[in-house]
Amino acid sequence: MPDEPREPVMRATYRALCAHGYANLTMQDIADETDLSKAALHYHYDTKRDLLTTFLDALASWYEGRLDDLAGDTAAERLRALFDECLSCEDSDYPAFHTAMLEVKAQAPYEERYRTRLATVDEVLTARIRTIVAEGVDDGTFRDVDPTATAELLVDVLAGAHTRNVAVGRNLAGTRARLDDYVEDQLLAHDADDGPEHDAAGDGEHDADADVDSDQEHGGSADRDGTSVDRPAEASR
Amino acid sequence: MPDEPREPVMRATYRALCAHGYANLTMQDIADETDLSKAALHYHYDTKRDLLTTFLDALASWYEGRLDDLAGDTAAERLRALFDECLSCEDSDYPAFHTAMLEVKAQAPYEERYRTRLATVDEVLTARIRTIVAEGVDDGTFRDVDPTATAELLVDVLAGAHTRNVAVGRNLAGTRARLDDYVEDQLLAHDADDGPEHDAAGDGEHDADADVDSDQEHGGSADRDGTSVDRPAEASR
Repeated sequence: MPDEPREPVMRATYRALCAHGYANLTMQDIADETDLSKAALHYHYDTKRDLLTTFLDALASWYEGRLDDLAGDTAAERLRALFDECLSCEDSDYPAFHTAMLEVKAQAPYEERYRTRLATVDEVLTARIRTIVAEGVDDGTFRDVDPTATAELLVDVLAGAHTRNVAVGRNLAGTRARLDDYVEDQLLAHDADDGPEHDAAGDGEHDADADVDSDQEHGGSADRDGTSVDRPAEASR
Repeated sequence: MPDEPREPVMRATYRALCAHGYANLTMQDIADETDLSKAALHYHYDTKRDLLTTFLDALASWYEGRLDDLAGDTAAERLRALFDECLSCEDSDYPAFHTAMLEVKAQAPYEERYRTRLATVDEVLTARIRTIVAEGVDDGTFRDVDPTATAELLVDVLAGAHTRNVAVGRNLAGTRARLDDYVEDQLLAHDADDGPEHDAAGDGEHDADADVDSDQEHGGSADRDGTSVDRPAEASR
């Protein structure tokens, strides 16, 4: 299908997901965001699930590109850039799109094609963190932590932050701040004179964290740069 | 409504959620799991959302009771018992119920009553962890970490583990094992002679973690005791 207007359709799908969520999304909603008729859209995609599968493919590719291109001279800087990618929420579409994505995740057990694409995104993220942590361990800037276990823990944190943000309105900025503390306290190899004592995190910095997290509505913080993950359309608009 | 058969209806709702998921669940499905007619069920609950709201209330109460009653003489033991509660998956209904709960979480932005109940569960869990960590800090068995920041990070981990389990099939046992390592490496106050070095987690234990986590289907591990959270019906069957 060389004439398939894939890129505009992907952007239209993104906008329609933001506007309608996943459960209520129709092919007409997506067509309404393009110059195409619903019939023309159906020529390329039999069902909403077919179209969403292609959308998740595009999302995975886009996401992989973003994570390949993280700024930072050190492992700690690249890890922080990755957290910025994953947890920023400056876009006004952010809450709506992440709500739709949580709906898609909840549909994954019923739709194997969603599941495989979401698994790809999960694996790409996990592998990227594992690589960065291994680089930090190898060059001595990180302690001798296990890169695999660290990556899995951090991906759990990132996934949980998004779920809690959508479901109960916990803001992402709180998690973002805690991950800075995690890098500082658990990963960075400090000199002996500030080493072990620094591990104990009761240093006052964390007190601010309670304020950051105090039941703000989701998407309420726009104090971080970068584009959130799961937003392929943003990069190509 | 003193004659409302609430407890059997809650158990029926649990079973119907496991069998049908949330999106496709009908009042008839729930009535079919009880001795009541659909009309009788509607006498007590106008809509599926009304019934689900009551179900989430029951869930929150049940959950609070479970977390109030954790076994363990020390803070570390109580924290591990809490992790067992939150991440066990021995029940064969487990994957289906957690899939339904993720659907409910994804509906929370559209249904304020779900959101407030889910927020209660989130707050109960966070507060319980915060209290346990504070107890450990106070009695000197834990390092001087910030209980609030630690609790929020751990709740992110627990929520993320469940989301990834449903969406991409990562098993919960991997997260459970990593949390044991977290307690050991980050929370427990070790004696000076095994202190700082113990922080570095490249100790071989973590290598097993990669195996535990190797893309098993969700619910595949039943090697932990305890009853998973979000399963009120189990406790009262």
